[in-house]
Amino acid sequence: MLIRDALVLPGAGDWRARRADILIRDGRIAAVGDGLQDSEVIEGKWLLAVPGFVNAHYHSPLSILRGTADGLSHPAFMWQNQADTAQRSAHEVYVSALLGGVEMLATGTTAAIDHFPEQGFTLEHVDAVARAYRELGMRAAIALRVFDEAYDDIAPPGGLPVGFPNPLTPAPLADSMALVEEAVKSHDGGLLRVFPAPSNPSRCSDALLVACEELARRRNLGVHTHLLETEVQTRIAQARYGTTMVKHMERLGLLSPRLSCAHTIWIDEDDIALLAERGVTVVHNPESNLKVGAGFMPLPAMRRHGLRVALGTDGASTNDNLVLHEAMRLAVTLHRPKEERLRWARAEDALDMATGAGAAALQCAGSLGSIAPAQSADLVLYDLAAARWTPCNDAAQQLVFAENGDSVHTVLVAGRIVVQNRKVMGIDVDGLLREARGMLAGIRARNRHLQDAVKALP
Amino acid sequence: MLIRDALVLPGAGDWRARRADILIRDGRIAAVGDGLQDSEVIEGKWLLAVPGFVNAHYHSPLSILRGTADGLSHPAFMWQNQADTAQRSAHEVYVSALLGGVEMLATGTTAAIDHFPEQGFTLEHVDAVARAYRELGMRAAIALRVFDEAYDDIAPPGGLPVGFPNPLTPAPLADSMALVEEAVKSHDGGLLRVFPAPSNPSRCSDALLVACEELARRRNLGVHTHLLETEVQTRIAQARYGTTMVKHMERLGLLSPRLSCAHTIWIDEDDIALLAERGVTVVHNPESNLKVGAGFMPLPAMRRHGLRVALGTDGASTNDNLVLHEAMRLAVTLHRPKEERLRWARAEDALDMATGAGAAALQCAGSLGSIAPAQSADLVLYDLAAARWTPCNDAAQQLVFAENGDSVHTVLVAGRIVVQNRKVMGIDVDGLLREARGMLAGIRARNRHLQDAVKALP
Repeated sequence: MLIRDALVLPGAGDWRARRADILIRDGRIAAVGDGLQDSEVIEGKWLLAVPGFVNAHYHSPLSILRGTADGLSHPAFMWQNQADTAQRSAHEVYVSALLGGVEMLATGTTAAIDHFPEQGFTLEHVDAVARAYRELGMRAAIALRVFDEAYDDIAPPGGLPVGFPNPLTPAPLADSMALVEEAVKSHDGGLLRVFPAPSNPSRCSDALLVACEELARRRNLGVHTHLLETEVQTRIAQARYGTTMVKHMERLGLLSPRLSCAHTIWIDEDDIALLAERGVTVVHNPESNLKVGAGFMPLPAMRRHGLRVALGTDGASTNDNLVLHEAMRLAVTLHRPKEERLRWARAEDALDMATGAGAAALQCAGSLGSIAPAQSADLVLYDLAAARWTPCNDAAQQLVFAENGDSVHTVLVAGRIVVQNRKVMGIDVDGLLREARGMLAGIRARNRHLQDAVKALP
Repeated sequence: MLIRDALVLPGAGDWRARRADILIRDGRIAAVGDGLQDSEVIEGKWLLAVPGFVNAHYHSPLSILRGTADGLSHPAFMWQNQADTAQRSAHEVYVSALLGGVEMLATGTTAAIDHFPEQGFTLEHVDAVARAYRELGMRAAIALRVFDEAYDDIAPPGGLPVGFPNPLTPAPLADSMALVEEAVKSHDGGLLRVFPAPSNPSRCSDALLVACEELARRRNLGVHTHLLETEVQTRIAQARYGTTMVKHMERLGLLSPRLSCAHTIWIDEDDIALLAERGVTVVHNPESNLKVGAGFMPLPAMRRHGLRVALGTDGASTNDNLVLHEAMRLAVTLHRPKEERLRWARAEDALDMATGAGAAALQCAGSLGSIAPAQSADLVLYDLAAARWTPCNDAAQQLVFAENGDSVHTVLVAGRIVVQNRKVMGIDVDGLLREARGMLAGIRARNRHLQDAVKALP
């Protein structure tokens, strides 16, 4: 396939737009240049070609929960999520994953790390999520969220009431790891991987954390986790380990380029330097961090230390759309009023976060995230004839600061067209929307005892 | 006209969605209820009806300047704007105004305060802007930006170089006011008003400020101005008046419900209380404030004092799209990490800012901003069948936190359909886009001497 004479933002640090042909063979970019030929041609005169974005922290179970969490603190939102996600059928899991996937593809995100699920799960649930991504043709890491300790950080002062029907009851380590091993084997390779993914190191025993790292190393996977999203998590780490959570993870051997950490807000300069030195990726979710009041991730210090920062939307209850463009612009503008101008992160930095850094978190560094020979052909073609792009003064700046994904025209993942003329191709979208509409009411009716218990929390 | 059985967010503090018919007669809402009848019907089953948003601070000349200002400080961005807007023809002024208007209408904004222009203008330029809004059928206040002193706040340290071709040369007060008087008379009434609008009080003599207030009082208009956008402006006020700018304006008699002040970031608690007491409206532009590093407007303190806060996008070089939904969500989440949760601004507060507070800045308080009998029929109908709205768990929360204006289906201003089935009706949009594409290159070629001079500023 040839994309002829498109405006191209190559990526990998080079975000100056220029006209070029892009030749695609066997899911990869074969050549970028002038005068290339192929029998199948996409005319690029009015298209901007950009490497697909990676949403490096997202939760598919929350995609049916938009509009449910305004004004909730982090603990309140966490408990409400539990009540809204408990006891889901595999089919409900599949529908919610499709819904989020459709929005991501349609707005220029071609890959995601899906930190799944909120609580206990079976292999059937993992298969349901995997089926959703396969049908959409989307690239994903299903990061299986495991824990074998209590969620202390969201417990109300004085602990949970007696008899509280806690859906976050820890599973035995051996059971969780056996399930993850099985899921890894079932979905290994192609566009889909399964990662071991502690919910949060403070919700896991050391043995579970080490088992995740060991599995990831053995099978060449990533490890994904929440890290230091709230201040209370720093205090729990100090009380439990006598040091910071980052230094504890270092002692356990967890810090490596395999690891990606969502949020990572409550971190000091020393630990930022340590993460940078070990090649860890942190995932910034600026919209979610503001909406639940979690805090301001210290992006300026992270950039000074060369720590790799990817971007995520987080789930749809803390960020009610899954548009990565907004995360890009907030990431690079949020700190500007208090930072020296020449150090400001700029549009190109946002684009590197959304592409290369995300690819690293996905464990695809070097093969994904730019438009260059031998890279995977994960491409988004924006419609430059759209009003939003008129006039096109600077493609990189406008992609970051003007676009909302609404002029995405065509999307390719590994060379396969998954969005064509603004239409998501892999599934019956209207049928999906019909199914998704009544689903939450059913889940809430089924979980009424849990809803009531959660609402009664102090 | 009847909008039948739509989901309705009434506004004016009531943002609980309910099903209702909306009957429109002579540009106003005649009734809201059940079982209403009319010969002309819009079927509302899949539509959400919302009062149109007011973009209460915006600059139409900048609408062709997306993608031109990343990484620029406030002074640098101001000077670059000068070089990109100088010597525009009336036709160029008209095209830029249409371009911004098309984007606003298409994303659910039905009215704007257009702080126009960047520098000197003639009545022909004002007529060109007015024609753009008339053709689009959009409600607007053309806030004519006048000044008779130097723009000290953006001068480089040591002042401007000798021979600098400063397009911001002040016009004599009498000339400016005669022009404004003439423009006010030409465009008085209907959807369009002209407001006297100091660029910034620090760029105006006391006599000019008083003349603006006097004209506004005499003709029942608003006064619009930038206020305390940057820290240096507070120091200029202290040095010049021996007090704060707000107290100086109080002494001049400028503080009244006629006044709306954009940005208003560098303000203390006393002055916030004084603005609140006088019924002034401030206009929050959170995206612009972050992008140029201007600062964080103290919204929590303003809310505590009951100061009315409207929302603006600012111009397209400091906020490269004109989508008010993003300003809404950033306004209510930006301060959350440092604020006590029970005081957080929430979705309903954002909606009041974008509707009622904006209507007050437009001097339409009481007749615009809600879906209720006798209000102007300025309505936006969102497509609830869109994926972004599926499932619809809470219309107000999703309007603020999920929507980007991309599911706007139909827009009415004063009862007239101006967007139908996502298509802006009043003008030839494709022709507009063709014209807008090459325009900046021509303006830059013509202003090369000014571009060079601006780039050479320290």
